[in-house]
Amino acid sequence: MESATHWILTLVCPDRPGIVHAISGAIVDAGGNITESQQYSSDDTGTFFMRLQVESATGRAAFETAVASIAERYGMTWQLDVVGRPLRTLVLASTTAHALNDLLFRQRAGQLPIEVPLVLANHPDLEGLAAFSGVPFEWHPVTGPDEKAAFERRVLEAVEEHGIELVVLARYMQILSPGLCAALEGRAINIHHSFLPGFKGANPYKQAHARGVKLIGATAHFVTTDLDEGPIIEQNVERVDHNQSPEELRAIGQDIESRTLTRAVGWFAEHRVLLDGARTVIFR
Amino acid sequence: MESATHWILTLVCPDRPGIVHAISGAIVDAGGNITESQQYSSDDTGTFFMRLQVESATGRAAFETAVASIAERYGMTWQLDVVGRPLRTLVLASTTAHALNDLLFRQRAGQLPIEVPLVLANHPDLEGLAAFSGVPFEWHPVTGPDEKAAFERRVLEAVEEHGIELVVLARYMQILSPGLCAALEGRAINIHHSFLPGFKGANPYKQAHARGVKLIGATAHFVTTDLDEGPIIEQNVERVDHNQSPEELRAIGQDIESRTLTRAVGWFAEHRVLLDGARTVIFR
Amino acid sequence: MESATHWILTLVCPDRPGIVHAISGAIVDAGGNITESQQYSSDDTGTFFMRLQVESATGRAAFETAVASIAERYGMTWQLDVVGRPLRTLVLASTTAHALNDLLFRQRAGQLPIEVPLVLANHPDLEGLAAFSGVPFEWHPVTGPDEKAAFERRVLEAVEEHGIELVVLARYMQILSPGLCAALEGRAINIHHSFLPGFKGANPYKQAHARGVKLIGATAHFVTTDLDEGPIIEQNVERVDHNQSPEELRAIGQDIESRTLTRAVGWFAEHRVLLDGARTVIFR
Amino acid sequence: MESATHWILTLVCPDRPGIVHAISGAIVDAGGNITESQQYSSDDTGTFFMRLQVESATGRAAFETAVASIAERYGMTWQLDVVGRPLRTLVLASTTAHALNDLLFRQRAGQLPIEVPLVLANHPDLEGLAAFSGVPFEWHPVTGPDEKAAFERRVLEAVEEHGIELVVLARYMQILSPGLCAALEGRAINIHHSFLPGFKGANPYKQAHARGVKLIGATAHFVTTDLDEGPIIEQNVERVDHNQSPEELRAIGQDIESRTLTRAVGWFAEHRVLLDGARTVIFR
Repeated sequence: MESATHWILTLVCPDRPGIVHAISGAIVDAGGNITESQQYSSDDTGTFFMRLQVESATGRAAFETAVASIAERYGMTWQLDVVGRPLRTLVLASTTAHALNDLLFRQRAGQLPIEVPLVLANHPDLEGLAAFSGVPFEWHPVTGPDEKAAFERRVLEAVEEHGIELVVLARYMQILSPGLCAALEGRAINIHHSFLPGFKGANPYKQAHARGVKLIGATAHFVTTDLDEGPIIEQNVERVDHNQSPEELRAIGQDIESRTLTRAVGWFAEHRVLLDGARTVIFR
Repeated sequence: MESATHWILTLVCPDRPGIVHAISGAIVDAGGNITESQQYSSDDTGTFFMRLQVESATGRAAFETAVASIAERYGMTWQLDVVGRPLRTLVLASTTAHALNDLLFRQRAGQLPIEVPLVLANHPDLEGLAAFSGVPFEWHPVTGPDEKAAFERRVLEAVEEHGIELVVLARYMQILSPGLCAALEGRAINIHHSFLPGFKGANPYKQAHARGVKLIGATAHFVTTDLDEGPIIEQNVERVDHNQSPEELRAIGQDIESRTLTRAVGWFAEHRVLLDGARTVIFR
Repeated sequence: MESATHWILTLVCPDRPGIVHAISGAIVDAGGNITESQQYSSDDTGTFFMRLQVESATGRAAFETAVASIAERYGMTWQLDVVGRPLRTLVLASTTAHALNDLLFRQRAGQLPIEVPLVLANHPDLEGLAAFSGVPFEWHPVTGPDEKAAFERRVLEAVEEHGIELVVLARYMQILSPGLCAALEGRAINIHHSFLPGFKGANPYKQAHARGVKLIGATAHFVTTDLDEGPIIEQNVERVDHNQSPEELRAIGQDIESRTLTRAVGWFAEHRVLLDGARTVIFR
Repeated sequence: MESATHWILTLVCPDRPGIVHAISGAIVDAGGNITESQQYSSDDTGTFFMRLQVESATGRAAFETAVASIAERYGMTWQLDVVGRPLRTLVLASTTAHALNDLLFRQRAGQLPIEVPLVLANHPDLEGLAAFSGVPFEWHPVTGPDEKAAFERRVLEAVEEHGIELVVLARYMQILSPGLCAALEGRAINIHHSFLPGFKGANPYKQAHARGVKLIGATAHFVTTDLDEGPIIEQNVERVDHNQSPEELRAIGQDIESRTLTRAVGWFAEHRVLLDGARTVIFR
């Protein structure tokens, strides 16, 4: 007898009555049992969002057939995946290690369902860190427009080559071109070192110090052409004090950045992040 | 045309496949649309828990009939209520005002769906506070076993008389008798002034100071005959310092107590708190 | 024998060696014992800040004489007060009750060393709340420029009349004129219902919802002519969710506002808030 | 000209008037300028605690002479160190990597002023992690009383050999013998995977799950012969949910453990942790 598989099913469609009954019927038909379910109806966009975990001994094909007929009727965008399958993830990095270290450490510890076939950097500094985790590392200088264009072509090539499902900017200190942003829409996550929308742009810890804020933070968001304006996935803050220098704020901030980015990546890898216009729905 | 009502449906039953489909079918049959849904399958007890919000123009009788047939089949315990209906709540109090003040202030502000037909106290101190909120106040001294028994009889009488659905111990400084605990099982909430299971019993802030903890907290829990051991509904903590006296810990703690109790009461009033053995399921 | 008084001494001066020794010498000379001491040297402005608590049986005059000679030598701005003396505080309010309720509740509970000789409002709604606390309440409509000017004249008159040391804008929904801001510089505190510098201006909870932030907050700051740009005293945040409406954000936010404002007022009343250019030094 | 050194001076003595003036006088005499100062008078033990940072071009000998005369007079225990000097730290570990990884990563990143001449473990699992940071690693099995005694002798030998100032138990899963606890008193820090005093002993995450707590935490404390009862240095918590298994609590908990232990070690290395009976004074 075939043993049961744990599936994740996510679906998005225009909101109307009967969706839950229809989809749960399809799951019953496919011999499945719903073990987790979350839903949300957006008043802003009139959209219905759902994430299900289903235990089922049925194979993928039968499951897909059952869902597809309902999906058609309700105009659903949907995705079916196996719980725990590691998401193929490309990491872009520069010189600071904390965000990359946290991602790779948790991946190795079995806490983050991703696999990283490549780290692409514009500096050589983090090669040892990648090597320690057994992750291929490649770097190219990005000092002028030609090198930048070449680097971005290499990103797209690597996405193709490795079947990349998510691109993570782990403190990659370059602004992506509008073309690359568009090509990676909805599958590239950046960590911004401030509590957005406060302190956009460069040097947020210096700005935070100058303004004398009492909490500093970090924001993980989708990459869009509007710099620092992409849909927010996760944010965290920590309390700070008048006697902390911009450098100390930076050190505290790096912890928040790592934690926030890793959490956002984990949620994305578990299909817990869905887009509702300029906002995200997070099914935790 | 009859306008739509917003319903809350909670149900608890042994876990097995098909429950979601069956119940969503009953809701479709009753002309309802599910606007919020949360579920949980407990591995510990094999129990399935669900909370739904449903928009429906159908009257209560038709809705109940549709649910009842499914409930029978699956052995469900269930409850149907209207969103926002104020829960009839009896508050027990002693001399400290903060917890009662927070409950009554939020009730008046429309943030807490309860109505309080009576505050019962063993001291007269809080009469003015109740009066300001227009809430009847009654007090009886509890200095010996006879007075205690009389007070507890008065509690049960008031529960009967006012159709009380929830009893809140807002820093009521008396231990309830086993008989009263049993009579109010699952519908009496206490606030304990420590982060349980640390510092059970009396004088937790003094204990916390002596032990030199760096965070102090409060715990809202169901009242059971096992003192300070009832299922936990909500907990919060705040950071403290070596230079804070037990008195200062108490002042900080009172804020945490108020916030924690009010939140627990609000969740209970919205049918978000379900019992899973010695633990609670909180559908936030 | 004269019993000991607990004093608070705050001082600000250009930073240079020897200040601590000089001031502690003056305190020894005045028969005092330092029980608490905090200091900070600002690299930004080259300023030295100190807050001392001193136990001393010496009268005020002798203490002041001892400090004054040192103060002269080091160019100090300084202030001597008795621990726990209630600060004379004027509260401005409009229609929402939460911030005023928290201030008055804590003042009554002995947790906030202020006295409130008057609440001045531009609406009558909060009269009952003030009456319950035994605080005089006065209101005048502010619907046009003349009424606004009259209201502001009344504020300054009340400041004079009652020897006001602090003006608190407890969700007072009017922008103060530059003249009034200047007159109250360094002694007027506002609560802004966002985590500044994000979401300045009106309707921050609506903005926060539209932007899909994952934490909302509040900021207590000094009033300056630069709207929402005054030195920040305290900030707090709470986690929110995609499924919370702007109205729910507002309800959550009001708690944060109350807590944040009350804390800022308490610190100010205990002389724990000092100004370092556009930033504050908070000696907690 | 000799450039200025930044010193940390900590001192503990019976509380009495005049200490601040005396010590600040000694610092003035030694040509120093106080840049940071924190003090605390314990009502519980009648002890005075102080931590100063001093900028001075004077050499160590002159500084020590100046302090020593005052120290004698007031019965002070004192310590003088250079800001930023890495503390010689021995780490004990077993099989779980998270706490050791965090310590070594931050040490490398320049955020933790320690140097680690040796990691001693009772399992070989973490050898690669130590190697990646260039830290010597040594392991010996501890499966019976003889091996345990030998391991503990090796600890004391290593302490001697490397001039160890701090021993960190980074999830070292063995109870130290009373003899070793005594030998390392006041210079060994352990991380306990619960929010003490709740859930002492083994398997705290299982206990936390069974009890249904809403927050889990970790506690960094000094090692004493009273298991899990040593003076607390730091504690942190995170919110958890009914639907998280003991395994998920463990994963969340490991983050809290790492953060909490690293912070406690950092404070100790900066001489910010002083003992006041069973409590700690933390000068942050």
